[in-house]
Amino acid sequence: MANPIRVAIAGYGNLGRGVEAALAQNPDMQLVGVFSRRDPASVTLLNSDVPVYAMADVEQYQNDVDVMILCGGSKTDLPEQGPYLAQFFNTVDSFDTHATVNDYHAALDAPAQKAGHLAMMSVGWDPGLFSLNRAFGEAVLAEGKTYSFWGKGLSQGHSQAVRSVEGVKKGVQYTLPSEDAIARVRNGEQPELSTREKHVRECYVVLEDGADADTVRETIVNMPHYFAEYDSVVNFIDDDTFAREHSDMPHGGFVIRSGLTGAGNKQSIEYSLTLGSNPEFTASALVAYTRAAHRLARQGETGARSVFDVAPGLLSPKDPAQLRKELL
Amino acid sequence: MANPIRVAIAGYGNLGRGVEAALAQNPDMQLVGVFSRRDPASVTLLNSDVPVYAMADVEQYQNDVDVMILCGGSKTDLPEQGPYLAQFFNTVDSFDTHATVNDYHAALDAPAQKAGHLAMMSVGWDPGLFSLNRAFGEAVLAEGKTYSFWGKGLSQGHSQAVRSVEGVKKGVQYTLPSEDAIARVRNGEQPELSTREKHVRECYVVLEDGADADTVRETIVNMPHYFAEYDSVVNFIDDDTFAREHSDMPHGGFVIRSGLTGAGNKQSIEYSLTLGSNPEFTASALVAYTRAAHRLARQGETGARSVFDVAPGLLSPKDPAQLRKELL
Repeated sequence: MANPIRVAIAGYGNLGRGVEAALAQNPDMQLVGVFSRRDPASVTLLNSDVPVYAMADVEQYQNDVDVMILCGGSKTDLPEQGPYLAQFFNTVDSFDTHATVNDYHAALDAPAQKAGHLAMMSVGWDPGLFSLNRAFGEAVLAEGKTYSFWGKGLSQGHSQAVRSVEGVKKGVQYTLPSEDAIARVRNGEQPELSTREKHVRECYVVLEDGADADTVRETIVNMPHYFAEYDSVVNFIDDDTFAREHSDMPHGGFVIRSGLTGAGNKQSIEYSLTLGSNPEFTASALVAYTRAAHRLARQGETGARSVFDVAPGLLSPKDPAQLRKELL
Repeated sequence: MANPIRVAIAGYGNLGRGVEAALAQNPDMQLVGVFSRRDPASVTLLNSDVPVYAMADVEQYQNDVDVMILCGGSKTDLPEQGPYLAQFFNTVDSFDTHATVNDYHAALDAPAQKAGHLAMMSVGWDPGLFSLNRAFGEAVLAEGKTYSFWGKGLSQGHSQAVRSVEGVKKGVQYTLPSEDAIARVRNGEQPELSTREKHVRECYVVLEDGADADTVRETIVNMPHYFAEYDSVVNFIDDDTFAREHSDMPHGGFVIRSGLTGAGNKQSIEYSLTLGSNPEFTASALVAYTRAAHRLARQGETGARSVFDVAPGLLSPKDPAQLRKELL
């Protein structure tokens, strides 16, 4: 086997830990270091025996890293770190602010082109694999409608809102696709549905001693912006159940393309994810696109790329003939 | 808009008709002619006002066609027509003999490279979109298992076997994924399953006057090779129901990748198709890849390509910035 691809992680939270774990599942890649804005001595890795460096020193390592995986957040970290790090490294990130993807693309493209690096943006499941399925769906079924549903997924902001209610000791909130809405879409009805109509909200709450369940339920389901406009359900559970069943970070969803061909034949394409760990899945997608970014960079390609620009075979450790033989 | 892509069809059966219908849904492409081995005067198109030419004269039209879509069968037509037509045209085909894809790739690649054409092979849903999902699944979830299920789909060979049974007036057979097998896979059990264990066979039969239902059922479900080794169900219906409900060509299926990440979190990716018309869906995929083939050829690429080699954005009529804005 060729030398492994030398990979580093910039930012070490849930996503960075997921990348560390995913790299261990891919023998053609090797984690060579982690960069953090925290004091490196305070950062403990899952199980890798590689150095943790200060982000401020990152420039010094530009010859030691083939691809840098950016694991910061889209709100404040990536808009700064992406264009900065693209000067020194080939990069892969999970930028997920849908509204500003073209601004971010432009901000990444210029420094990456200038330095001769490849910058792979917005990798993960949405944006990412869901985006690809929206594109394949409308390209293949030219006449039709595309639906994206999210969930069952833990919502951090809504969980916080539940916990702010008096009488709530512990609480989490999940967003689920509406069964009724999915059934209508699968049936080929092509309904018009708002995000609100497509989803329901489900809460799991442990009450404070002496709190009144009905009062807590009413307060939650009538909370404006968060719950009042949705179908919301509140379930009361005990401490043990909460600890056992509600400490993971599941997520998932569906992309459905419903179309018509010929003289009116219904055709449906459905892509769905059921994720035990949202950050670990996103990290696994980042690692697959790290392989593609490395190959594109070695072919001399430079600048910003999205998942739409990458031939799927580049994600696989298998060579083209093996891919055709085993998977075509 | 730029000039439409000039497309021709080679071979005019169910698939060719599907391509004709799909081209009408894509305004950036234009059907310019149909080539047939039959007497052109005997070929009636669905609703296009374009000439039908003799296949023997195809060489004369090499400057009038941007992409030729090959709609012949994989058994005898494509192994001959693919390499022959790649000398004169950029081509797209649905070659689906999994066992010989690399031989076919080599046979296409040489004449296409020599003549400077692009030859897009094995487009459709399996091979095609299912192949892509097998590749994405194993690239993203490096540790796991991939399952392909087919159905509900009409099987021509097995329908013929049903009709050969004494007492059967009309009969069709559908292959369905086993609900039990799908449930185990979705549950993350990663079972070992043969093709047989993954599928059940369902027959719909109209009896001849006076035929005995139990005898017919026993004969069918015990037929060696065709039914005896499967879970098989026989339903008896009347002539009207048969005409109303069993004259289409539905098909579909699932690709499921079931994997583990991190310390053992279950992750599942599921891709499914529910197709009202199998040939029209395959045709729609051929037309989307025709757009990609044309773009690759204009970029100067030559030789044989599979779906693994094509960046998904090339399938869309939207430009890269619009794709990112609307679908990323």
